[in-house]
Amino acid sequence: MKKNIGIIGYGNLGRGVALALQKTPDMALAAVFTRRDPASITPLGGALSLPLTEAPSWRDKIDVMILCGGSATDLPTQTVEYAAWFNVVDSFDTHARIPEHFTAVDTAAQASGHLALISAGWDPGMFSLNRLYANAILPEGSDYTFWGRGVSQGHSDAIRRIPGVRNAKQYTVPVESALEAVRAGKRPELNTRQKHTRECFVVLEPDADAAAVEQTIKTMPNYFADYDTTVHFISEEEFHANHGGMAHGGTVFRSGLTGSNAEHTHVIEYRLTLDSNPEFTGSVLTACARAVCRMAAAGRQGCLTLFDVPPAYLSPLSGEELRRTLL
Amino acid sequence: MKKNIGIIGYGNLGRGVALALQKTPDMALAAVFTRRDPASITPLGGALSLPLTEAPSWRDKIDVMILCGGSATDLPTQTVEYAAWFNVVDSFDTHARIPEHFTAVDTAAQASGHLALISAGWDPGMFSLNRLYANAILPEGSDYTFWGRGVSQGHSDAIRRIPGVRNAKQYTVPVESALEAVRAGKRPELNTRQKHTRECFVVLEPDADAAAVEQTIKTMPNYFADYDTTVHFISEEEFHANHGGMAHGGTVFRSGLTGSNAEHTHVIEYRLTLDSNPEFTGSVLTACARAVCRMAAAGRQGCLTLFDVPPAYLSPLSGEELRRTLL
Repeated sequence: MKKNIGIIGYGNLGRGVALALQKTPDMALAAVFTRRDPASITPLGGALSLPLTEAPSWRDKIDVMILCGGSATDLPTQTVEYAAWFNVVDSFDTHARIPEHFTAVDTAAQASGHLALISAGWDPGMFSLNRLYANAILPEGSDYTFWGRGVSQGHSDAIRRIPGVRNAKQYTVPVESALEAVRAGKRPELNTRQKHTRECFVVLEPDADAAAVEQTIKTMPNYFADYDTTVHFISEEEFHANHGGMAHGGTVFRSGLTGSNAEHTHVIEYRLTLDSNPEFTGSVLTACARAVCRMAAAGRQGCLTLFDVPPAYLSPLSGEELRRTLL
Repeated sequence: MKKNIGIIGYGNLGRGVALALQKTPDMALAAVFTRRDPASITPLGGALSLPLTEAPSWRDKIDVMILCGGSATDLPTQTVEYAAWFNVVDSFDTHARIPEHFTAVDTAAQASGHLALISAGWDPGMFSLNRLYANAILPEGSDYTFWGRGVSQGHSDAIRRIPGVRNAKQYTVPVESALEAVRAGKRPELNTRQKHTRECFVVLEPDADAAAVEQTIKTMPNYFADYDTTVHFISEEEFHANHGGMAHGGTVFRSGLTGSNAEHTHVIEYRLTLDSNPEFTGSVLTACARAVCRMAAAGRQGCLTLFDVPPAYLSPLSGEELRRTLL
């Protein structure tokens, strides 16, 4: 009997989850719940499209609800709200606010007797797991996280808010020489500018002042001022032809020392090269939904992160199969 | 109150564990148990050196016993035997025999009410974890494991058994073009020869026939016949000057597909570059001992692998600290 999965929010991430569910032997998409007109959405695999307001009435028919809204305004309220009715999984990714989100979701899930898993995806998510494992193994050392090459939605949005800008895409690019130094075990001290550059592709309004826009971008506090930034002005046609992708990725390193005099260096590197950020993130959320089914069935309640999940629970294989084939 | 850790077997791996325990805030090395003359060993940090026969009398004073013997003959009997008296951790690495070892250790640990964690280290161990996570996330795809550049003890031993050979070291070397093809998401089909080469450094006896030795190495079934093998004859002096290191490492990849027509490729890469194989493996075993302390305290019994361990249990930090600093 397949577990019934629900999705709240059917944007890129929701579709990524729906695609991942088509590859699972043990879970199926039952329904998508949306704030839009449900008739405007045709979920993959013949699942229902329903108004969000109907979600609570499905509380006995959905094993895990996967929340696919944004971290800025949707998830801080939605995950807490829906943990009252469902086991839930989200991809809340505002790192600085994870502790408060965890507490709020934990309180709601404990009160309703459900299980929640928050901040799944790749960062937070798989990158976090690799930071944790590597720190537990090598307590003496340095951590490095590089992102990209990939699109930063926040930075793209910031450029689009500049007067005279019609459209924009910003790529975060790791500095190759910094990556190589870390990979070689040199444990460099790197400031913000030394780790990433920012590359912007901008479509201007017809009467815009290109030099002024470029200056505004490059000096924007927090977003660009601390980075070496390149700005390319392109046509709307080129923008749509070449900058519609959702590729992303990055690399987490820990470079640690062992020995009686810290004479041995070890480098642990975890690298993701993703053609589709939302499809990969949706695949992680889907594996997490499987773990939540199992841990909830075993009586767990409250809020978890991937740090708390025995890895075997993410796989459809039995413990015996896993030991035989992957150990 | 620090947890008391014991070590059985004080070779390179045992010393690696002892070094790792010097960096832990919550565990300390209590005693080393050895089949050798205990007076010949001075464990790090002032721990006791005791005859192996005394180990059972320490059953109430050791929280976790870490077994640091070899997989060929020591661990298949030792882990089972000592699980009768202790919570145990081992690095059993004969992949094909893990299922039977698991069953034997599980039976012993269940009978005595102890907890055992087997096959920890990097392969099996961290590489296995990465294969599991990546397969759970990307069910459609291909797995690749590359080892090296690093010393294979088994292959070095095989060369040393050839008449006329005084000393030998064999390095397993991944084929760079194969690594690059996998990293680029090309999902190549690779046979044994296309993944690794073997490089041998051999010291001959004075009257040995170099050509015959080289021919014997290159045609040795299972060990070398399926690989492109290079043989270098060197002096005893050069051997000791340049080939005493214990560096190793390798890379695990999963290259997986998502999308409505498998149109998106994702590459997950986990790479280890280790100056000291036994010190890194010892560091993994030490983190596993921490997890075993916690899971045993929570009432778990029987046999586990890293697949069953919630990652947070490997770290000395609290769940709150982990979420705040590493998520």
